[in-house]
Amino acid sequence: MMALSWLLPRALPGLARPGCGRALRRAASASASAPAAPDFNSFVIRTNTCGELRSAHVGQEVTLYGWIQYQRQGLFMILRDFQGLIQVIIPQDEAHSHVKNLLSNAPVESVVRVTGIVTPRPPGQENPKMPTGDIEVKAETAEILNPCKKLPFEVKDFIKKSEALRMQYRYLDLRSFQLQYNLRLRSRVVMKMREYLCNLHGFVDIETPTLFKRTPGGAKEFLVPSREAGKFYSLPQSPQQFKQLLMVGGLDRYFQVARCYRDEGSRPDRQPEFTQIDIEMSFVDQAGIQRLVEGLLQYSWPEERGSISTPFPSMTYEEALADYGTDKPDTRFGMKIVDIGDFLQRSDIQFIQNALSYPHGTVKAICIPQGVEIVEIICRPDGSLKSLLTRFLGEEQQSELVQALNMQVDDVALLAAGEQKQVCSALGSLRLETADLLEAAGLVLRDPAAFRFLWVVDFPLFLPKEENPTELESAHHPFTAPHPSDTSLLYSDPTKVRSQHYDLVLNGNEVGGGSIRIHSAEQQRFVLEKVLKEDSEVLSHLLEALELGAPPHGGIALGLDRLISLIVGAPSIRDVIAFPKSFRGRDLMGNAPNYVTSEELEPYHIQVSWPLEEKEAKKN
Amino acid sequence: MMALSWLLPRALPGLARPGCGRALRRAASASASAPAAPDFNSFVIRTNTCGELRSAHVGQEVTLYGWIQYQRQGLFMILRDFQGLIQVIIPQDEAHSHVKNLLSNAPVESVVRVTGIVTPRPPGQENPKMPTGDIEVKAETAEILNPCKKLPFEVKDFIKKSEALRMQYRYLDLRSFQLQYNLRLRSRVVMKMREYLCNLHGFVDIETPTLFKRTPGGAKEFLVPSREAGKFYSLPQSPQQFKQLLMVGGLDRYFQVARCYRDEGSRPDRQPEFTQIDIEMSFVDQAGIQRLVEGLLQYSWPEERGSISTPFPSMTYEEALADYGTDKPDTRFGMKIVDIGDFLQRSDIQFIQNALSYPHGTVKAICIPQGVEIVEIICRPDGSLKSLLTRFLGEEQQSELVQALNMQVDDVALLAAGEQKQVCSALGSLRLETADLLEAAGLVLRDPAAFRFLWVVDFPLFLPKEENPTELESAHHPFTAPHPSDTSLLYSDPTKVRSQHYDLVLNGNEVGGGSIRIHSAEQQRFVLEKVLKEDSEVLSHLLEALELGAPPHGGIALGLDRLISLIVGAPSIRDVIAFPKSFRGRDLMGNAPNYVTSEELEPYHIQVSWPLEEKEAKKN
Repeated sequence: MMALSWLLPRALPGLARPGCGRALRRAASASASAPAAPDFNSFVIRTNTCGELRSAHVGQEVTLYGWIQYQRQGLFMILRDFQGLIQVIIPQDEAHSHVKNLLSNAPVESVVRVTGIVTPRPPGQENPKMPTGDIEVKAETAEILNPCKKLPFEVKDFIKKSEALRMQYRYLDLRSFQLQYNLRLRSRVVMKMREYLCNLHGFVDIETPTLFKRTPGGAKEFLVPSREAGKFYSLPQSPQQFKQLLMVGGLDRYFQVARCYRDEGSRPDRQPEFTQIDIEMSFVDQAGIQRLVEGLLQYSWPEERGSISTPFPSMTYEEALADYGTDKPDTRFGMKIVDIGDFLQRSDIQFIQNALSYPHGTVKAICIPQGVEIVEIICRPDGSLKSLLTRFLGEEQQSELVQALNMQVDDVALLAAGEQKQVCSALGSLRLETADLLEAAGLVLRDPAAFRFLWVVDFPLFLPKEENPTELESAHHPFTAPHPSDTSLLYSDPTKVRSQHYDLVLNGNEVGGGSIRIHSAEQQRFVLEKVLKEDSEVLSHLLEALELGAPPHGGIALGLDRLISLIVGAPSIRDVIAFPKSFRGRDLMGNAPNYVTSEELEPYHIQVSWPLEEKEAKKN
Repeated sequence: MMALSWLLPRALPGLARPGCGRALRRAASASASAPAAPDFNSFVIRTNTCGELRSAHVGQEVTLYGWIQYQRQGLFMILRDFQGLIQVIIPQDEAHSHVKNLLSNAPVESVVRVTGIVTPRPPGQENPKMPTGDIEVKAETAEILNPCKKLPFEVKDFIKKSEALRMQYRYLDLRSFQLQYNLRLRSRVVMKMREYLCNLHGFVDIETPTLFKRTPGGAKEFLVPSREAGKFYSLPQSPQQFKQLLMVGGLDRYFQVARCYRDEGSRPDRQPEFTQIDIEMSFVDQAGIQRLVEGLLQYSWPEERGSISTPFPSMTYEEALADYGTDKPDTRFGMKIVDIGDFLQRSDIQFIQNALSYPHGTVKAICIPQGVEIVEIICRPDGSLKSLLTRFLGEEQQSELVQALNMQVDDVALLAAGEQKQVCSALGSLRLETADLLEAAGLVLRDPAAFRFLWVVDFPLFLPKEENPTELESAHHPFTAPHPSDTSLLYSDPTKVRSQHYDLVLNGNEVGGGSIRIHSAEQQRFVLEKVLKEDSEVLSHLLEALELGAPPHGGIALGLDRLISLIVGAPSIRDVIAFPKSFRGRDLMGNAPNYVTSEELEPYHIQVSWPLEEKEAKKN
């Protein structure tokens, strides 16, 4: 009956559905610095939006525009716009037969204008679940502005059926309250961020080019052929170079809601184009950027999601790895990794002794509260352990283990022995997987309304290359400055240098990252040439800029798509992007990318190298 | 002496140079809805900006960061930041010899920190031309944060020398007060536009994809190879399809500061990527969009440029062509085109008779006030004309001509006879060229402080194709709706149909264009298939969307780069873009586009087709 109910995703928790527009306006008017609620009815003929009507409007003649949500036997219909639903009474008298005829026969999702009088609903017929449920509109005149043809799929089966179909008809999906809410919240949050940066703190919104050239190691950059044979632009992964050059240019405080590009082929929940809140400041240190970002998020945080407190806690990269086995810990729950090497050293278990004898060898464990729900290795009511390991552990050691892990009845301990990093990483993954399993089994581990921000700091500046561990690569990018305490190590033992890079983590997701940059041309050249063994020629313009009056500077980039999806509790960043691409990078609505003729390629001096199979297929 | 004086372009009229930051803050605090002036000193150690210091700060210890503008004999130096200049007194006593040593030896454009006390300048040494000219800072401590190497060109010759060099060292050019002012004004205007759209009128800021597919006739769209062999994305020239689909999706009011792309090869003062303020509304008519845009510009107009009055005047396309010979009339001055066919019909001049005998034949003229300054064909003091034509004109006709054109002594009349459109177009061009010549000769024709907005409306919906005039093409784009009065003509005589397209013109420059769109799938299909003879298949997703509940809608796009360049009086849009490309589409700083290896092309299944000469050159 509710024809568009399928457009309302059910999986997303905690979101007001109908009347989200109202919430929007409430939020806007309540916030201290926000101006009065926006006027949605300026410049058009409508007097009101459907969703804003209330008892206060009783007696008024209103002109509404909207979509027919459903219609019942020529008696009434529900009209919908972006602010909500309103019940419209279809007149039954002879004088209005034309109106009755129009509205009774218009298909669901047709676009109509209705003019009528707001009246109270008859006593007992109020609908408290509907923000407009106390009233209805008695139609006087109506007009079908655009009739809707047959909708492209069986309505009620839709969600089950196919994500691809939803993507193909994205404009229908966009009519759902959920997507309307997500996109409007995104717009509102970004607007508040701009107010904070521009109006409160003097940042300048500057657009930087997206047609640039390949950066060293820019294998994930899309190429754009130019009309000069053999020459290509590249769509950069971030405005990194430009924002630094803006600081050299004396712009002092820059920000941009920047479109960025990354060609990673097929990866789930990544988009080939994405958006970051890109920030750079001169004469700032790490703490300055952190306080700025905390203030930014606090200021722009949507009221209906509670408030966030600042400063955010901070953790070093080493601590994060040791305690959580990851550099983006989800600190909404415990289950920290515990080192049990000390007393297991005294056990006779051979493989543990082996593990501990190696460099960086370790034995660690996590305790799964109520782990009995998901695995069978448990702590018994009498405090003894049900485990093969107990054979090798004395009673004392067992009790030490129980104490070290603070195990309760029915808890499960997972132990891992081996090389420190591998052990932590494995236990970190197990920690998240068991949390998922526990929650699937009905235990509440992570408060879905909690937003736990965390700074992770003191990353290593360089990491051994995976393919050749004797060579180094930048842990983040080559412009990151070394930690002030480690500057001299840069020249003696670069592997030991910590960086001034910082990541912002929210509920176990990286939502931002930045650093203080190198502003000395000499140091930058040393890093590029001596440590990374790269050809610094491609970055000659940046090196030269550092020689010509570059101020100390630093910045950060926040991943807007991920941040907003976490705020609204959406499972995918696709739910906060108006026209997302599929995980294979395709636009299923417009069918992009697509074939072009070889004539169209000519001005760009390129031709397609067809893979052999395709060549064959084309022949046949 | 003023080392960076070359960074201050001299050609741009009417702009405050030093102290622009101050103007910014004044403007921000004066505007009714703007919050208090931004805090430029949050999150950093500096206590003040250089440019903000005044007598009120006397006695305070301040910490400043900036660039050395110049330094004189170890006695004083001028420190510069984005807000202006401050004089720093270098201490001469023994206890401060270290400070003296540092500051005396630091090269111009080095970055320094200075801490010191604000003191009044000695009586008689105030500099009224400098906003900070009543005071100076007595340095207590100082630090060279980054010394500047030798600047890459002889300073004083710079502007004369080479635009290319300025582009290559754009970050140096960005330090000029002029570019700082332009970019900050741009940021400020856009922020006000956002406030108007989002906060006052309920528009939603929505990002649309830039990786899409070719639109029909999209020959100017850059291609982006994908990892699927033979398939390409395209960088769209505007979010046209997406903004319409957002209306179909019920978003009601959309805007975006949208990056757009157009590959036109080499064209002066065009950029391959540019920015438009992109707007779309549902349930709106032409007047609604016009009032919206007038309000938008009035609200965001920078205070220091005066105010603009609304509504803007409006002119039909036909009137514009007839009176000004162009569809973007500069209405800051007269010299309108006058039809003199009526009385010249009575003359014996053969070529005029010829011209008038053809269909659309006409004789028109413009009168150049004080034209004697630039051409020699004149109206004599005795009221007679100095022209070969006078041979063929009786005295009465001469006097009629003088009257019709309202000619004064020393005015010049230019006559043209022939086909109406060609005549108007030629006289329209002459009107602008003679205006330039008159101004070059010292006459004031156009007030440089005047901003004359104008709507041009009632464009034809279709135009004959240049290469084959029996076929029609869209005057703007195929989604433009026909004028309501002309709808039936669409099916009988499409050449006569006027459209609901409107252009916004400022001082003779097109700064915006938009239309009410077709929302009927049937009408859209008819236009595409029957009138334009295009394959509607590539637009099937849009046609389908129009069938599934598309509201009536319309919108506009404002060219931000051009608009801002007109507001600041810059000769080129390059002056309001942080990192512009050269007129050949090159980034001269980073050297883009550039060659890539064939390995880098492999994942995209393309190869370069070298033109023969280049192949040969590579061989040798």
